[in-house]
Amino acid sequence: MDAAVTAEWIAADWGTSNLRVWAMRGREAVAEATSDAGMNTLDRDGFEGALLALIEPWLGGPVEVIACGMVGSRQGWVEAPYQPVPCAPAGRLVKAPTSDPRLTVRVLSGVLQADPPDVMRGEETQIAGLLAREPGFDGVLCLPGTHSKWARISAGELCHFRTAMTGELYQLLAKQSVLRHSVGDGWDDDAFADALEETMARPERIATALFTLRADGLLNGDAPDKARARLSGLLLGAELAAMKPYWLGERVALIGASGLTQVYAQALKSVGLDADIHDGTEMALAGLAAAREGA
Amino acid sequence: MDAAVTAEWIAADWGTSNLRVWAMRGREAVAEATSDAGMNTLDRDGFEGALLALIEPWLGGPVEVIACGMVGSRQGWVEAPYQPVPCAPAGRLVKAPTSDPRLTVRVLSGVLQADPPDVMRGEETQIAGLLAREPGFDGVLCLPGTHSKWARISAGELCHFRTAMTGELYQLLAKQSVLRHSVGDGWDDDAFADALEETMARPERIATALFTLRADGLLNGDAPDKARARLSGLLLGAELAAMKPYWLGERVALIGASGLTQVYAQALKSVGLDADIHDGTEMALAGLAAAREGA
Repeated sequence: MDAAVTAEWIAADWGTSNLRVWAMRGREAVAEATSDAGMNTLDRDGFEGALLALIEPWLGGPVEVIACGMVGSRQGWVEAPYQPVPCAPAGRLVKAPTSDPRLTVRVLSGVLQADPPDVMRGEETQIAGLLAREPGFDGVLCLPGTHSKWARISAGELCHFRTAMTGELYQLLAKQSVLRHSVGDGWDDDAFADALEETMARPERIATALFTLRADGLLNGDAPDKARARLSGLLLGAELAAMKPYWLGERVALIGASGLTQVYAQALKSVGLDADIHDGTEMALAGLAAAREGA
Repeated sequence: MDAAVTAEWIAADWGTSNLRVWAMRGREAVAEATSDAGMNTLDRDGFEGALLALIEPWLGGPVEVIACGMVGSRQGWVEAPYQPVPCAPAGRLVKAPTSDPRLTVRVLSGVLQADPPDVMRGEETQIAGLLAREPGFDGVLCLPGTHSKWARISAGELCHFRTAMTGELYQLLAKQSVLRHSVGDGWDDDAFADALEETMARPERIATALFTLRADGLLNGDAPDKARARLSGLLLGAELAAMKPYWLGERVALIGASGLTQVYAQALKSVGLDADIHDGTEMALAGLAAAREGA
């Protein structure tokens, strides 16, 4: 960390298990720091200290902090109540209680959907960032991750969204289930494509296709690389089958980390969709900057 | 344990994480013992000691042990190679190396299927037990568990089978995923039935229906009992959707532990099937006894 950096304001993406902060000048990040002081690890009075531990070197005087993510949940620093869809994805800002006189901390609200029930916290800020960059965007956004979000955007509003637990399911199956003995770290494009097609076309096969990975490893010595790509393909195929009403015939853009968005882009290509790809961090910073400017 | 018991022979169900043994006289179990000395916890030379630790009190002189389960896998006491389907479910017996002169230990082989690739170890002995009791059984057997097995039985042979990881998925989701915050210990029959119907009719919904449990808990304060029954229903609905070619228009019987077989029986009833229920332990003992008598 560059000790000479002084922040004009501070952007924070504060999730369940991590805290990421950026020293900002205007819309530009000039320094970055991260820690594992996620919401899950903190009591309500632990947030201020966890934040200061990262940003202290950037403080010249009073500073404004804009934060998104689980920090605004009921178990977070301050509850920033969900806004119901349809709504502008740029959330409302709720002030968090602080004792250090240099700090003004405001937390962005999440978004809820009553029917079918769904929630997001953090992704709405990335969506707001994309709309700040492309105000006319009309179509569907997919934000792959532990819990992938699919959102319909029209006339600058977030209209409807759904969550698929694909990333979390993948982690549980690859690392903690019996499949951990068969799944490696490599990749196989053809195995991914075949598995994707299999559960997209016949989503009911997912229940038996999973154990087949294990049996294939035992009986045919199937390569761990192939098993990993197949597991990913089976789960993503099930997600795409569920989300078909979202992507069919639509303009789709992806927001997220580069490895994961590439995999989703490859999957969408197989159904004839060319998705634009946007970096998740960039969109989060754009959304936090827009929230600050609009406040 | 009754110190006066002497075993005529010993039956063992030796799985990945547990060892269960019974002191037998003919086909009757007269004493029982269990430990957590599963295959996963033992080196090859640790099996004999783990067995003796449980059965020593029952030994009057030389004794024969018949074992089924993962003890016969490549990582087990001795590898009892898989038999390919179609085959009689009563496996072949493979002698395990022992140093105690009182012990003769034989391990039952598992069953494999080449296409689609699938394996079982242990369940085939329960199936053999059912066929020893009901030699004319013709139809489909379902053995719910961590990895549920569905098997077509005809003319005394195991013809074809499939595995669904439903039990393991349920445990991972209920105990280790974000759903653990929403899923309780109770039950709700209507919630189970609705969720079952949902993924049986529309299996592609499973990808989004799971996170809905969490959102329902957050937004509507849904009862943890209801969430547990819904999670169970969603996963079992997906299993039944995958296994439809097995059960549709067939005679189906269930083999397993009483709680789980009841849930499966309730699910099968919703598609018009009255399944006979057989106790898993009874069937395992009948299968081990039949293997001994046939040897």
